[in-house]
Amino acid sequence: MLKTPTIVLNVKTYMESTGENAFEIARLMEKIAEETKVSMAIAVQACDISRCVDAVSIPVYAQHIDPIKPGSNTGWTLPEAVKMAGAVGALVNHSEHRLILADIDTCLLRAKDLGLDTIVCTNNVAVSKAVATFSPSMIAVEPPELIGGDISVTTADPGIVRNTVQAVRRINNTVKILCGAGVKNGRDVAKAIELGADGVLLASGVIKAKNKEEVLRDLAAGVL
Amino acid sequence: MLKTPTIVLNVKTYMESTGENAFEIARLMEKIAEETKVSMAIAVQACDISRCVDAVSIPVYAQHIDPIKPGSNTGWTLPEAVKMAGAVGALVNHSEHRLILADIDTCLLRAKDLGLDTIVCTNNVAVSKAVATFSPSMIAVEPPELIGGDISVTTADPGIVRNTVQAVRRINNTVKILCGAGVKNGRDVAKAIELGADGVLLASGVIKAKNKEEVLRDLAAGVL
Amino acid sequence: MLKTPTIVLNVKTYMESTGENAFEIARLMEKIAEETKVSMAIAVQACDISRCVDAVSIPVYAQHIDPIKPGSNTGWTLPEAVKMAGAVGALVNHSEHRLILADIDTCLLRAKDLGLDTIVCTNNVAVSKAVATFSPSMIAVEPPELIGGDISVTTADPGIVRNTVQAVRRINNTVKILCGAGVKNGRDVAKAIELGADGVLLASGVIKAKNKEEVLRDLAAGVL
Amino acid sequence: MLKTPTIVLNVKTYMESTGENAFEIARLMEKIAEETKVSMAIAVQACDISRCVDAVSIPVYAQHIDPIKPGSNTGWTLPEAVKMAGAVGALVNHSEHRLILADIDTCLLRAKDLGLDTIVCTNNVAVSKAVATFSPSMIAVEPPELIGGDISVTTADPGIVRNTVQAVRRINNTVKILCGAGVKNGRDVAKAIELGADGVLLASGVIKAKNKEEVLRDLAAGVL
Repeated sequence: MLKTPTIVLNVKTYMESTGENAFEIARLMEKIAEETKVSMAIAVQACDISRCVDAVSIPVYAQHIDPIKPGSNTGWTLPEAVKMAGAVGALVNHSEHRLILADIDTCLLRAKDLGLDTIVCTNNVAVSKAVATFSPSMIAVEPPELIGGDISVTTADPGIVRNTVQAVRRINNTVKILCGAGVKNGRDVAKAIELGADGVLLASGVIKAKNKEEVLRDLAAGVL
Repeated sequence: MLKTPTIVLNVKTYMESTGENAFEIARLMEKIAEETKVSMAIAVQACDISRCVDAVSIPVYAQHIDPIKPGSNTGWTLPEAVKMAGAVGALVNHSEHRLILADIDTCLLRAKDLGLDTIVCTNNVAVSKAVATFSPSMIAVEPPELIGGDISVTTADPGIVRNTVQAVRRINNTVKILCGAGVKNGRDVAKAIELGADGVLLASGVIKAKNKEEVLRDLAAGVL
Repeated sequence: MLKTPTIVLNVKTYMESTGENAFEIARLMEKIAEETKVSMAIAVQACDISRCVDAVSIPVYAQHIDPIKPGSNTGWTLPEAVKMAGAVGALVNHSEHRLILADIDTCLLRAKDLGLDTIVCTNNVAVSKAVATFSPSMIAVEPPELIGGDISVTTADPGIVRNTVQAVRRINNTVKILCGAGVKNGRDVAKAIELGADGVLLASGVIKAKNKEEVLRDLAAGVL
Repeated sequence: MLKTPTIVLNVKTYMESTGENAFEIARLMEKIAEETKVSMAIAVQACDISRCVDAVSIPVYAQHIDPIKPGSNTGWTLPEAVKMAGAVGALVNHSEHRLILADIDTCLLRAKDLGLDTIVCTNNVAVSKAVATFSPSMIAVEPPELIGGDISVTTADPGIVRNTVQAVRRINNTVKILCGAGVKNGRDVAKAIELGADGVLLASGVIKAKNKEEVLRDLAAGVL
């Protein structure tokens, strides 16, 4: 389980974060995490998991797992394969990769069986509550309309963070809560924590930054 | 482009062919391919591509690519990532991972741009003809009802192989044609070639065999 | 809102229950419902809603609605269209038509806005709990492996019914609970009610019966 | 089979064309078709097929059919149901409702069996060629980026219309060809025919018009 508060970076499928570029970012995160003692994790493409695990000691997550058991599932992401490649967990139900409700249940059961951590992405308070009943490791609430945008969810809609924290804790107070969408700097991180969240999930704020190290250091400062 | 006639092994997501088990099978194939000079290739899970490429010199394929460009596509399989991990090509539209028609077109264009080989799976003669208009590297026709079964397509439905070969060649005679479903031994391979195919695509016939080396040697003998 | 206990018949897309055949079954249900005072409802194909509504006075449900607003959604099922055709509600997330989690939330909000009743189908206790947080009108729990089979869920797995009732009531005691899968006769209905359910959802038990009237009368007797 | 040249109106799921509003538009089309002798057809939501068929004598199409046979397919669109409701055909693979390649093949076979006309939508010349190998009744090419826009495909990209006509005719000269996307007036229709198309498929150009009758008359004038 990730130490919290934490900063989870989803590198998506940008060219700036595919293959060697992803490992470079992971190394930067590892260095800053060591220096600042702030908990950081990276979620990379399935193709990049094993090499990223070889390159760094920070926790590496898959960006997705499929609700399958070993067998005939050509081209799908087997939780066992993710685990064997060295990932410690997986994002589940990201807004760019939504799952059928029963399949979220199956993914979480499969992950639990294998000792994989799960960060389930949600779009609002109601869906966060529904997911909380499944007891994932973490829930990451991200209003889809703010993802990839210029204004952080913590500024644009602080209520969704506060209300998700409150509603999820009432159903299951062992679930950690992240927030995401538009998160870009230390102020956004500090605000997320102030609103009760256990950290942030972000992507373009780092990947598209000219100076990734500077942005990562600023994000870490928001935790401190 | 794969030398033909060829034997392409899709290891799917069986436990017997995930992680280290997949690399073991790949090494076996490499040994037999070198000894017999029969062309062999392996299609592994995205998580296993880079380590498999490190382990062997036979061509490694992805089992799937998504119809996407670099960007915000969390958890999907970016053709560039597959290429950077070291794969030479990808299965497209496998019966366990069908694609929307327009997305097959996009996948093939993306693969062509990146210099990736494509093996497009089809279920019958009509669909094979439609795919032939796109000029993939190869078409692999596999009647879904025979996949994973005990009787080889070359025995159960030789007509589908012969008619696919004929129909595809008429539309585009640069496209290579594989057949699959139930293929298990050298006789099936020899029959496939006799029917005009350029090789076979198979999975459980090898993966579920007690003695994988024996089966692979027998398959190779079918080419000779 | 349906009066409970109730018997809801999903006619699916069988030939025996398409077009005029569906209206025939609806008329039979109407007659028996009137005679026995047992609450009965029918869920028909989108194409058949308006004519079925014209034919009978029992409540007519859609088998599905899509999570959409009026606009550019060619070929999808608009909740408004279902309502205007005369349906009083809709099945949502049937095991043959599963939805993405966030889309269940959207469907339920859309239905509530339009005054449509919702019967959300679930596959187990955990998923039923998650759905209960959304406050649908009803939840219908149906273990997929028993659907269309010979043994009623009330016999094969009474625990799933009892535990769903208990778990859902704890989260939201206004939600009514149906059970389904293999339900065929009055004994199954009586058992469902004894286990705490508010009725049953069934399909082939009636549609595939030689004497539909006899089966419907027997089901009604199970309520009495 | 539709008489060509023809104007096919897809009413989508706009409020302006749901339920009674759809029948109103259909009556308008019927009146103008009778007066001008221009061939016109309307594609309505599944819920609205039977009432629309009762209301008018112009051909009524479904907006979609699913690749299914009668059976357990809750909430999907059975070709038989569409036929029994009175539709003469269906749009297949609309850009808002894309299908898996093998499912297009199945839909077309099912439609042929039932005597239903098919208008298969495509996004470019390559996909149109692939579809032509299946021999549908009609192909409607619509560049997705122009759909719902202000500039007609016939102005923005006349080459796609001309090249689709040419490529499809070469593969199968019995297939009729429509074009769509941004089509709004008689000039667009005339240009489509001049480019070799057999008519147009349009939606918002009529549905969102203040004066639908005026627009429909202008479109008809483009054929004359």
